Amino acid sequence: MGSKVGEFRKKLKIVDVKGGPNEGLDRVGLMIVVAGWVRTLRAQSSVTFIEVNDGSCLSNMQCVMTSDAEGYDQVKSGLITTGASIWIQGNVVPSQGSKQKVELKVNKIVLVGKSDPSYPIQKKRVSREFLRTKAHLRPRTNTFGAVARVRNALAYATHKFFQENGFIWISSPIITASDCEGAGEQFCVTTLIPSSREAAESPVDAIPKTKDGLIDWSQVYTFGPTFRAENSNTSRHLAEFWMIEPELAFADLKDDMACATAYLQYVVRYILDNCKEDMDFFNTWIEKGIIDRLSTVAERDFVQLSYTDAIELLIKAKKKFEFLVKWGCDLQSEHERYLTEEAFGGCPVIVSDYPKEIKAFYMRQNDDGRTVAAMDMLVPRIGELIGGSQREERLEYLEGRLDELKLNRDSYWWYLDLRHYGSVPHAGFGLGFERLVQFATGVENIRDAIPFPRTPGSVEF
Amino acid sequence: MGSKVGEFRKKLKIVDVKGGPNEGLDRVGLMIVVAGWVRTLRAQSSVTFIEVNDGSCLSNMQCVMTSDAEGYDQVKSGLITTGASIWIQGNVVPSQGSKQKVELKVNKIVLVGKSDPSYPIQKKRVSREFLRTKAHLRPRTNTFGAVARVRNALAYATHKFFQENGFIWISSPIITASDCEGAGEQFCVTTLIPSSREAAESPVDAIPKTKDGLIDWSQVYTFGPTFRAENSNTSRHLAEFWMIEPELAFADLKDDMACATAYLQYVVRYILDNCKEDMDFFNTWIEKGIIDRLSTVAERDFVQLSYTDAIELLIKAKKKFEFLVKWGCDLQSEHERYLTEEAFGGCPVIVSDYPKEIKAFYMRQNDDGRTVAAMDMLVPRIGELIGGSQREERLEYLEGRLDELKLNRDSYWWYLDLRHYGSVPHAGFGLGFERLVQFATGVENIRDAIPFPRTPGSVEF
Repeated sequence: MGSKVGEFRKKLKIVDVKGGPNEGLDRVGLMIVVAGWVRTLRAQSSVTFIEVNDGSCLSNMQCVMTSDAEGYDQVKSGLITTGASIWIQGNVVPSQGSKQKVELKVNKIVLVGKSDPSYPIQKKRVSREFLRTKAHLRPRTNTFGAVARVRNALAYATHKFFQENGFIWISSPIITASDCEGAGEQFCVTTLIPSSREAAESPVDAIPKTKDGLIDWSQVYTFGPTFRAENSNTSRHLAEFWMIEPELAFADLKDDMACATAYLQYVVRYILDNCKEDMDFFNTWIEKGIIDRLSTVAERDFVQLSYTDAIELLIKAKKKFEFLVKWGCDLQSEHERYLTEEAFGGCPVIVSDYPKEIKAFYMRQNDDGRTVAAMDMLVPRIGELIGGSQREERLEYLEGRLDELKLNRDSYWWYLDLRHYGSVPHAGFGLGFERLVQFATGVENIRDAIPFPRTPGSVEF
Repeated sequence: MGSKVGEFRKKLKIVDVKGGPNEGLDRVGLMIVVAGWVRTLRAQSSVTFIEVNDGSCLSNMQCVMTSDAEGYDQVKSGLITTGASIWIQGNVVPSQGSKQKVELKVNKIVLVGKSDPSYPIQKKRVSREFLRTKAHLRPRTNTFGAVARVRNALAYATHKFFQENGFIWISSPIITASDCEGAGEQFCVTTLIPSSREAAESPVDAIPKTKDGLIDWSQVYTFGPTFRAENSNTSRHLAEFWMIEPELAFADLKDDMACATAYLQYVVRYILDNCKEDMDFFNTWIEKGIIDRLSTVAERDFVQLSYTDAIELLIKAKKKFEFLVKWGCDLQSEHERYLTEEAFGGCPVIVSDYPKEIKAFYMRQNDDGRTVAAMDMLVPRIGELIGGSQREERLEYLEGRLDELKLNRDSYWWYLDLRHYGSVPHAGFGLGFERLVQFATGVENIRDAIPFPRTPGSVEF
């Protein structure tokens, strides 16, 4: 064996050829092998053009073939069609066309796996609703390939940001016995005797499901799947989604807001710098102006205002809202979007110090007795992208709040315990990763921001 | 606001002071603030020593205080005890002691959160079994702090390895309707009307739970939680654990083995290079010789032999095994460990081409008709660390195998579909992340390799 890093990856990918600063011109003259899937095939009288994609980048490799190429008979006989997987050997040459700098002059083509004529993703545009029923094939389209790459880049940038800033990634358990938000329905996770429907009908220990990343540590973050069992069938909710949740010790709400701002600016800058081709694609085809919008986010100071000021601003707004605004109410998506999109011209807005009645028990009570040190970051198109707070580190306040809300202290024994032994001011936030993907790519429906969406009634794939 | 990256992190951490090449001597003369938890406090006649840890590294900061320091009264009155959180301002000075190069001469101390005298983690050694009942506090111990940091480094190295080699991270859903290994009991995930025990007794749709990371893409990997509902109470199994699963298109079993080898060598090298202090700790206190063992893994060529040869070798072995060995049997932990630890002197061993009867339906059938292109990587102390295979990309073979095993083709419609439209040879593997943490730190029980272990009957925290 004796394989060292990278040796297993002998084949060049299309991004390795065309992804460089001069789009492949430095590779001219090289003989290479491309392995991928046929996007289109155009046979002209003397020459055949095959567009091949291997998922490594948005660009196809245009492969140009004449009848003297080895394997040409498979092309001629119509065996190689859209969706087929092929292996092509050829020389990189400057392209005659205007769409690309280089193309491949084919010496040899091998059909690896043919594509049945029923292949559902033909060249003509297909709707995203339809593609959701083909989640196993949709990454082969331009849009979903680009979303997958940008999603990947956002995830990696997330790890890079926290690692570079001294955070430790911890995995928080999925199976827990507490419901920390106290919000609505829950999942029940239990074991079944294999395939036995009857077993599901017998009493089981109801183990409600949620996650809770808090731990006694200097700075930590989680990045893992989260579940919400609400029966909401919207373009903004999933039953299973990924969350990023940092927690900072010796930190207050200001630190929390600064961390959230630095994080968002970092990951947005990362994809602008590292996913140019995909971002250009989104800018042209999915949401015009998205690159400008994201550049603004990466560069501008965010607006910060209190919930009380935000309510006042909304009441004074000329706009007619569906939901009435008054102090004490939860902000609806329409209010959030008004603030960031209209009141502050597309700049992210951080609203802080919400009424304690509409926020979770563990948020730190402010001295005014009616608000807590919570913050939401609102961004254009999405509304709330990040929600965070300083946590209540004072034992007597925390116990008092549990009692007020008729929550059982015993269920929170270890959470209270942390206030017995060296409690510290701490703060954190949560960000729904698929909302970030929506924000960063422009895709309208959250089901298109995750490979295999889970929504009420949908568990296919 | 206007916070830019890193601005929220104004305070120095202990690792920032002592983690450099000369262990803090370059910081002498600086006035700094340390915020952390008291590990020990020793009051001598004229001077008090406080060891403070902030989780950023194994080392404490030794803080030396005389009675003229601001806040000294809190020390004198006994308010500051082990486990308390404090804030200390002082000057970095060369240390008089031999245990560290620098220490902090305290100007000012602030008690942030006192520690109740019942604090369960006093200086005397406490058992790991006991600490499992204090999972919210155990990261404050040397061992669990070090495990958390090395676990974090292994996770980050995992992402770095795959990102640097052109893989795309994808999230595979937790909630699925298929059980791809077909092995034993499953979880049932469903929704409950809030807090209603009765709801759990009514018939629910049994949605078995497993994960399946396969997608039609060039090179992808998953890294997420996985569940196994077997009722096994061992030091090697968890009900909830994290898995790393890469999948390579246009790849065979050889590529798969090469990728697994390169991956393991990369992450082991990463922690040896980046977690020196923690690895020295494990080498001294947890498993003597672990650094040598890991260095061997990072440098040596791995042994590769077929299952058939492995069986022959085990039959000829002088050793008496609890489980009889014959061709066709599954290798037990004792066999796996014999191969890697004794037969090949501590070198990882990759066993390939297992009997098809003991492997999953999706593994590619070899031409001999009785084995499949599967591989397991065996390492000292752990046994199987990685299990992988080339997948059956040929539609007729795959359908034949499903029928043989009386599995319903309809349940696998999309998996079969991928063989209809441009199927390619592909291969992948799975690695249980907590086993890697055990392997890399020397901790004996897998429950100590994850922050909040989930085992049958255990959902505390």
